Amino acid sequence: MSKSLDFLTEALRRLPGIGPKSAQRMAFHLLQHDREGAAMLSRALYQAVDTVHHCASCNTFADTEVCELCSDDTRERALLCIVETPADQMMIEQTMTYKGLYFVLMGRLSPLDGIGPRDLHLDKLVGRATDGVVDEVVLATNFTNEGEATAHYISEMLKARGLKVSRLARGVPVGGELEYVDAGTIARAMLDRRSA
Amino acid sequence: MSKSLDFLTEALRRLPGIGPKSAQRMAFHLLQHDREGAAMLSRALYQAVDTVHHCASCNTFADTEVCELCSDDTRERALLCIVETPADQMMIEQTMTYKGLYFVLMGRLSPLDGIGPRDLHLDKLVGRATDGVVDEVVLATNFTNEGEATAHYISEMLKARGLKVSRLARGVPVGGELEYVDAGTIARAMLDRRSA
Repeated sequence: MSKSLDFLTEALRRLPGIGPKSAQRMAFHLLQHDREGAAMLSRALYQAVDTVHHCASCNTFADTEVCELCSDDTRERALLCIVETPADQMMIEQTMTYKGLYFVLMGRLSPLDGIGPRDLHLDKLVGRATDGVVDEVVLATNFTNEGEATAHYISEMLKARGLKVSRLARGVPVGGELEYVDAGTIARAMLDRRSA
Repeated sequence: MSKSLDFLTEALRRLPGIGPKSAQRMAFHLLQHDREGAAMLSRALYQAVDTVHHCASCNTFADTEVCELCSDDTRERALLCIVETPADQMMIEQTMTYKGLYFVLMGRLSPLDGIGPRDLHLDKLVGRATDGVVDEVVLATNFTNEGEATAHYISEMLKARGLKVSRLARGVPVGGELEYVDAGTIARAMLDRRSA
């Protein structure tokens, strides 16, 4: 039919979770109903590929050498919270309970997907955490198997270098009813019980 | 965080069926794992917006003034099949049972969505169908309420201009078991029964 349309459909399949039918539907929609949106997306992609890199300090996506949060003088520089993704970092920021800095792994250890310590740039993390200012590292990776393994690995690595390492508390979620919480979570909450 | 990243996430939401979480996931994926794919998609969008227009003859997407299929001298020029989308046209082409030409509506009549005869450029269709060469028009719009209404409207319009108009046969699908076919389809198949 149209070579440009075929190329666009093929390119849309590079998006995660988009198969051939969805890609075709998206291409038709953009060309038929939203050419302005297509042009805007083209510019946004070009600009992002061109300007977005990793913050020299915390490794998250940034347009500048050091991101805004890392440049903020009001944050506590002795606290370093380690998260898997920028989305996780945003969730923690929304809680307004943390005033330290971050390090964003941009992934997790996942041997099955071929992601080892090297792919996560853990050397960059070690350099960051042992700058002499950081005193405590808070591990806030996910509580999945891979997130837990990542936390364990980093914990061992940083404790060996004399840092204080903590982990987000596990337990029954706020508003949770015991009847509907899984047994593993309750077992953990029982082991980690605190004096009331 | 990063303005370019925010802009990209916002632009990705212009894609049909993509909400804020999916857009964010796509943006992270492209920047972290597939910058080449992002650059390719940027180029593909730019090129498509720039070059893809509607075939002067059949109204489908094309890079040239008249699309390849319409320029093909081996097709029967007396037969004109009307479909809703380029995807529908491709499905009919795959059956290898039709050797005529097409007219692609790029939509269907849908008063609820504000799509009337004018938005579908039915004047272009009338001009095409009354060129003196076309003898029979085959209506191959979908068998949904909107597709049926569109077929009915076009049928009346073209019959008034003296053209022979036909519709794809309705009935029990090939391989279909009566027990699992809906009553409306069986009723239709009964009314349209043919001598065996």
